[in-house]
Amino acid sequence: MLAGLDRVDAVLAVGGSGGSSIAARAVRDLPIGLPKLIVSTMASGDVTPYVGAKDVTLMYSVADIAGVNRVTRLVLGNAAAAAAGMARAYEAVRAAPAADERPVVAASMFGVTTPAVDAARERLEELGYEVLVFHATGAGGRALEGLVESGLVEGVLDLTTTELADDLVGGVLSAGPDRLTAAGRRGVPQVVAPGALDMVNFGPRETVPERFEGRVLYVHNPTVTLMRTTPEEMAELGRRVAAKLAAATGPAALFVPLGGVSALDAPGMPFHDPAADEACFAAMAGAVDGAVETERLDVNINDPSFGRAMADRLHRMISEGA
Amino acid sequence: MLAGLDRVDAVLAVGGSGGSSIAARAVRDLPIGLPKLIVSTMASGDVTPYVGAKDVTLMYSVADIAGVNRVTRLVLGNAAAAAAGMARAYEAVRAAPAADERPVVAASMFGVTTPAVDAARERLEELGYEVLVFHATGAGGRALEGLVESGLVEGVLDLTTTELADDLVGGVLSAGPDRLTAAGRRGVPQVVAPGALDMVNFGPRETVPERFEGRVLYVHNPTVTLMRTTPEEMAELGRRVAAKLAAATGPAALFVPLGGVSALDAPGMPFHDPAADEACFAAMAGAVDGAVETERLDVNINDPSFGRAMADRLHRMISEGA
Repeated sequence: MLAGLDRVDAVLAVGGSGGSSIAARAVRDLPIGLPKLIVSTMASGDVTPYVGAKDVTLMYSVADIAGVNRVTRLVLGNAAAAAAGMARAYEAVRAAPAADERPVVAASMFGVTTPAVDAARERLEELGYEVLVFHATGAGGRALEGLVESGLVEGVLDLTTTELADDLVGGVLSAGPDRLTAAGRRGVPQVVAPGALDMVNFGPRETVPERFEGRVLYVHNPTVTLMRTTPEEMAELGRRVAAKLAAATGPAALFVPLGGVSALDAPGMPFHDPAADEACFAAMAGAVDGAVETERLDVNINDPSFGRAMADRLHRMISEGA
Repeated sequence: MLAGLDRVDAVLAVGGSGGSSIAARAVRDLPIGLPKLIVSTMASGDVTPYVGAKDVTLMYSVADIAGVNRVTRLVLGNAAAAAAGMARAYEAVRAAPAADERPVVAASMFGVTTPAVDAARERLEELGYEVLVFHATGAGGRALEGLVESGLVEGVLDLTTTELADDLVGGVLSAGPDRLTAAGRRGVPQVVAPGALDMVNFGPRETVPERFEGRVLYVHNPTVTLMRTTPEEMAELGRRVAAKLAAATGPAALFVPLGGVSALDAPGMPFHDPAADEACFAAMAGAVDGAVETERLDVNINDPSFGRAMADRLHRMISEGA
């Protein structure tokens, strides 16, 4: 409803858990860039339900929002000043849209696929594209899908489909089952790789569910624990990726890095497991059965040639429509 | 370091997970009211490590913060406008501090103790106090302790010590083991009750750890599941509350609601368990051994007489120094 009002320059909401939920629903369909500020008692905790994949700003109220006292006077005063400042700036943005008219490519990245995405981005920028990079943190994948859905993207370089592993196995960075579907649904050209499908994400070591005792775990840092996917899981992930691409209404290509799907999956690294990877690649090949173009390159995903090859293929799809 | 600069009118930081952590450390000692805005790739998730108990504002960057593109241009533009707006407003606040000079009391509340805190607040406001209420969500308890530590509070009405149960048993709303210590350490008068010690908080039903199967659970709503504390846990909680008060350097009194410690702990309600409550109250009495004044009232905690009695006692402590 708010989205229909083209006179809105900013939205400011204030609430506890109930009010924050209502405010989040009210702003979630607004375009990126339109300022959305929620002052909330819930803004020091898990704010995923309020922010989702949008540029929502949350201000922690510290004290309960029940009348004006010396804490809420300061916090609410800041919120009003922030909303007013953003509204003024956004009014100017609406009056003079950005001049950059380069075609946009959306890319998915993780720490363990950064060299690959950097190589692809560099190539795409040489070719005249603007590249928007999304971290595959669940929220990032949802943001990528949302941007593709909004029609602003000319092509998708989906090099890091790792969120599908968290969705399948039960990790903490799932982007939901609809990840890797928006481009196919809207006919947007896409090149896809099984980047970081070797890992499922958890929080601190002690938060890994008991049912995973005995699995290969890697403590990345005190707040991130990674778990190697098994051959069975990799096979199912291969089938899922291939099936999503086979259902695409636009051009799609699958790039397979035979030398490993992440930096941790290279020889000598803790997640190196060629048999598990091959289970994924074989399932992919079986599932698409020739319906999706597949490139198998005999390098690790982070070899510069891999990202560049994906970038070149995507450019050909966009410029030639195939 | 920043706190030493009395010329700072706002702080704006931009970062991924590493940068956000650094920014959070830089702003956490700044006074409440000084604007603190962090644009972060991590702002759609659990932001507790960045916000803590402070009035930190987090803006989700949506896309990766690596150069300016059409998404980050909008998001970073909004951040700059918000920070500028808040800085201007805060400059005015610093020049003309608020005129309200009423003494401040900090109170702890939960949904199931709201009537008790409302009764106490009404009484305290009649007596000329300004009452700041903190929700016992972990962050709220930490905020209360921080405010007491900062010396801005004349007295503490700690009616809802429930976060200690989450700390003991492993719930999601712990405020850490140092909860209920700041007032004692600084000699600030405090009246304390075992409010909502009958419950440990979890998220959705399926997130309750397997080791708690067989316990008394109450599904409050789809995102909140409560677990009744056992007599053994209640006894330990009673000992802990009493020991913290016995160590206080200022005046302290313990108020015991013999008719139940929350709205769910009244006759006919799902957590009604007089034996468990009595285990808590007996342990409290044993632990303080006369060192802490204890009032036992034969009502449920939400009976208006209970909150009013706590308010009157706190006022006497503050005005008479005992």
